[in-house]
Amino acid sequence: MTDRPVITAFTWVPPFARGHVRDLRVRWALEEVGQAYDVRLVDGTSVKAEEHRRLQPFGQVPTLEDGEIAMFESGAILLHVARKYGGLLPSDPQGALRAEQWVFAAMTSVEPAAQDLAMSTVFEADQPWAADRRPLSENRVRGRLQDLSNRLGDKPYLEGEFSAGDLMMACVLRSIPAGLVGEHPNLAAYLARCEARPAFQRALAAHLGDFADAPPIAA
Amino acid sequence: MTDRPVITAFTWVPPFARGHVRDLRVRWALEEVGQAYDVRLVDGTSVKAEEHRRLQPFGQVPTLEDGEIAMFESGAILLHVARKYGGLLPSDPQGALRAEQWVFAAMTSVEPAAQDLAMSTVFEADQPWAADRRPLSENRVRGRLQDLSNRLGDKPYLEGEFSAGDLMMACVLRSIPAGLVGEHPNLAAYLARCEARPAFQRALAAHLGDFADAPPIAA
Repeated sequence: MTDRPVITAFTWVPPFARGHVRDLRVRWALEEVGQAYDVRLVDGTSVKAEEHRRLQPFGQVPTLEDGEIAMFESGAILLHVARKYGGLLPSDPQGALRAEQWVFAAMTSVEPAAQDLAMSTVFEADQPWAADRRPLSENRVRGRLQDLSNRLGDKPYLEGEFSAGDLMMACVLRSIPAGLVGEHPNLAAYLARCEARPAFQRALAAHLGDFADAPPIAA
Repeated sequence: MTDRPVITAFTWVPPFARGHVRDLRVRWALEEVGQAYDVRLVDGTSVKAEEHRRLQPFGQVPTLEDGEIAMFESGAILLHVARKYGGLLPSDPQGALRAEQWVFAAMTSVEPAAQDLAMSTVFEADQPWAADRRPLSENRVRGRLQDLSNRLGDKPYLEGEFSAGDLMMACVLRSIPAGLVGEHPNLAAYLARCEARPAFQRALAAHLGDFADAPPIAA
């Protein structure tokens, strides 16, 4: 029995998905706030089994068990971690609200376009329409990146200090082909700035290291 | 000058979008908590203009101005309204967290599949691949509805009393063709239960009534 929060992650995913499964978001948040955690690994079968679905009705990862709390949805988990452990939300209520707004903006205004592009380039890549449809998907992503670039301007983060909103936005930007993000130097620099954070580097190493066929970590 | 919150909505949208633009979510939330509000209408040009983009960087509706707060993103606005005015989140912290989790589940686990289906049936309906692609999109929606139906079971709402999570989930279910939702009688009944709420009916009437070419409301 431990007091540390427990998250779920996959034992294995194909190479293209590594560094992108959503447990990374939760690991990053926990690293930012300095909270150690345990990982329960699930595979493609157990994630769809009844026991896991009691925690996550859609048969996905991540989940968080933290004391009496058991929850799913990476966005909701991020906000819970930010509120409980501090450090990812400004202390003033309006600032916290703006950070929360950017978590939603990342997941509901930018990520759907990114997912649609991934549909064209990965999940439906073998469909006869993939090549013709891809430019439409790319243009939808371009539209959102242009708006985001305009809003970010020359600021280091979306609002003041690094917050939960930046954490989620960076995760979404990572899921977009680098060439598209790179059309906006300020967005590319923003993403690099977020990814350079030691907490992200630790989270990414742990995320990659937990796959069953990961190379052993050099001592 | 008024103390009432101000939201933005469109002067006009095509018939297929009426009843679905996201200002409806905010109107519904404000009706549920009993808070009167004002509406500033924007058109297709002004919504993309610099002045509106200062409120909403992606050039969309809704926005909320409420005292010193100016924000966008229907999910974040819903949570703000729920917290500030009460009545849409359980008073116990764990219950509130679960309601919040369902807001995210609606918007990030169910809505992307619904939006992808709308891509096939509406926005890319004239593309040569539309007919062949539609079954794939429908099946993704079916998967999410099956999981949601299993979790809902015979409960009236997702967790205890009606909450912000149900409000958002109902809005997302409304955006899915009724035939697909109707494959699960418990989901169809859940949606009807949510839509029968007087607050929803008032919000829908106000949403539809604000379009410039709406028929005058019978006295």
